[in-house]
Amino acid sequence: MTVTRAEIAAAAARIAPHVRRTPLLAVPAGELGQEFPIVLKLELLQHAGSFKPRGAFNRILVAREAGTLAAAGVIAASGGNHGAAVAYAARALGLAAEVFVPQHTPAAKVARIESFGARLVRGGETYVEALAASRARQAETGAMEVHAFDHADVLAGQGTVAREFLADAPGLTHLLVATGGGGLIGGMAAWAMGSVQVVSVEPTGCPGLHDALAAGAPVPSPVGGVAADALGARQVGGLMFPIAQRFVAQAVLVADDDIRAAQKLLWDRFRLVAEPGGATALAAVLAGAFVPPHGACVGVLVCGSNTDPSSVVG
Amino acid sequence: MTVTRAEIAAAAARIAPHVRRTPLLAVPAGELGQEFPIVLKLELLQHAGSFKPRGAFNRILVAREAGTLAAAGVIAASGGNHGAAVAYAARALGLAAEVFVPQHTPAAKVARIESFGARLVRGGETYVEALAASRARQAETGAMEVHAFDHADVLAGQGTVAREFLADAPGLTHLLVATGGGGLIGGMAAWAMGSVQVVSVEPTGCPGLHDALAAGAPVPSPVGGVAADALGARQVGGLMFPIAQRFVAQAVLVADDDIRAAQKLLWDRFRLVAEPGGATALAAVLAGAFVPPHGACVGVLVCGSNTDPSSVVG
Repeated sequence: MTVTRAEIAAAAARIAPHVRRTPLLAVPAGELGQEFPIVLKLELLQHAGSFKPRGAFNRILVAREAGTLAAAGVIAASGGNHGAAVAYAARALGLAAEVFVPQHTPAAKVARIESFGARLVRGGETYVEALAASRARQAETGAMEVHAFDHADVLAGQGTVAREFLADAPGLTHLLVATGGGGLIGGMAAWAMGSVQVVSVEPTGCPGLHDALAAGAPVPSPVGGVAADALGARQVGGLMFPIAQRFVAQAVLVADDDIRAAQKLLWDRFRLVAEPGGATALAAVLAGAFVPPHGACVGVLVCGSNTDPSSVVG
Repeated sequence: MTVTRAEIAAAAARIAPHVRRTPLLAVPAGELGQEFPIVLKLELLQHAGSFKPRGAFNRILVAREAGTLAAAGVIAASGGNHGAAVAYAARALGLAAEVFVPQHTPAAKVARIESFGARLVRGGETYVEALAASRARQAETGAMEVHAFDHADVLAGQGTVAREFLADAPGLTHLLVATGGGGLIGGMAAWAMGSVQVVSVEPTGCPGLHDALAAGAPVPSPVGGVAADALGARQVGGLMFPIAQRFVAQAVLVADDDIRAAQKLLWDRFRLVAEPGGATALAAVLAGAFVPPHGACVGVLVCGSNTDPSSVVG
C-alpha cells in the first residue's frame, strides 16, 4: 500500500486542530425517490470550501515536523480548490504561498485563493500546464511543492474523510466519491480497504480513473465539462492507482446535465450550495449511474462549494 | 407552563418521520475572533428551509390523531417560512392548504410556498393584515388554522429544536435564538426550563420580545428592517410570554448591518446560505450584543435559509 491506515490515523491527529469534522445528514429511503437510505457528509462546509485542506495541512505539517520547510514557503498548482486550501493552510501556519491556476479557473476560486493572501499566477489552458509553470517557478524559489493529489502525505490527509465518515456512520455499505486526480478517493479507499464498497464517480468529460482502470494504468484522458475546474486532472496519480485497483469497487460516469440537476436538488431540498464537482457523487445516485444492491446504505460525499451561489438556483 | 417538556417530547416522537434531525457544527474559541466555543445548529437545512415544519407538522398531526381535521384542509398566515412549512406539511399529509402572505414577502419564499402546491394569497402590508385576511377566509371555508406561533401544538413542535440541540451538545451553557412571534424561543425555553440560559436576539427593527419583557406584557412593536419578513410579528404570542418571563435570560437587539455581516460570514467561512432572520442569532455574538461569562459554551441556532443565495455574497 502506498498509504497505510496508520498514516491516515496519524494524519487525522496531526490536522485535527486545523480542520472541521464535517457533519452528516441522513436522507431516508424514498425521500429523493431512491430505494435505499443515504447519508450525506457535508464536506463542502470544510474550511476553504472543500476537502482539500486535509491533504494540504498534512503535507505541510509533516514537513514542518521534519524540519524540511523552505524559506520560500510553499507552491502549488491547482484547478482552484487545492490552491485555496494551500493558501488557507499557509496563512494559518505563517508561510508564504504561491498558487498557479489555469485560465479557466472560476472567479469564485480565484477570489478565495487571493482572499487568503497567496500570490496567484494565472495561466495555461489546463491544470497540467499550470503544474508545469509552478514547477519552473519552484526550481527558481526552492519553495516546497504541495501537490494537488500525487503525494503520500496528501493522500493520507484526504483519507481522513473516510475515517470520519465511517466512524460517524458505521452502518454504511458504500461510499460514493467524486474523482479528479484521485487523491481523495485514493486516501479514502486506503482507509476503507474493502470494508465498504468505494465507488468512484466522474463526469463523462473527465473520465480519468474510469479510463485508467480499463487500461490497467494511469492514462491521459479528456478534460472537459462543468466540473473540469475541480475534477480535470487529465491523468490520475501514480500513488493512488494501485489503491484504486484493489479497493475501488466501481468507477461510474455521469453526464453534465445530471451534475447540474444534483446541484439544483441540493439547493432545493437541502439548502446546500455545491459546486459541480461537489455534486458529482450525488448525481450518480439520482441519475441511476450507480444502483446499489438490496440492503445498501450509501454514503455520499458532498465535497466542494466554491462557486457562485446564484449558479445553483433552478 | 403553557407548554410542558412532556408535550415537547411527544411532539418529537410524532414529527420524527417528517423532519430532519439537523446537524451541528463546532466552532472553536478564537475561530471567529470570539473567546468562547460556539456550536451552530444547522436548522437552515431543515425541510422547506427553516425550523417551521416542526410546529406545522405537530399541529396538523395532533389534529389528525384527534380526528378534527377539516375537509377544507389547513390555512395559515405567514411572512413566508411558516407558509412554506404548512404547504410542505400539507402536501406530505395529503391535505389542501391556503397560505396568506403580506405583499413584501420575498420572491424566494413565495416561490417555495407555491412549489409545494399550496394556494397562495398575497395581500396586506404586514403579517398582521395577512392574518386578518386568512381568518376571514377561514370563516368561509372551515379549514383548520395553523397559527405561525401562538398555538400550544406549534410551540411544542418548535421546542423539539432545543431537545435535539441539548441532547447532541450536552455541554452548552447558552442558547441564542432569533425571535419573531416567539413560537421558536417559547418552545425552546419551555424545554430548557433554565437548564441553560436562553437568549433572545431580535433586530432593532422588530423588538417584540424585548419590548414585551420591558412592558411586562406583549405589546405592539415596530416591524421593519432586513429580517422583517421572518421576524416581524408586531407582537409576541400570549402563550409564549409567560414562558419567556420565566426562562428567557436576556433579550438583546442587533442592527441590520450586523445581520448582513453575519450572513456574509456564514457564506465566507462556512458556505452556508442563511436568510437575514437565520443569521440574526449569530449576529449577536459577532457584534458583541451578547457577551457570555467566562467558561461559556454558546449554542447558536441558524434557523432559516429561504433567500436568494446571491444576496449573501460580500
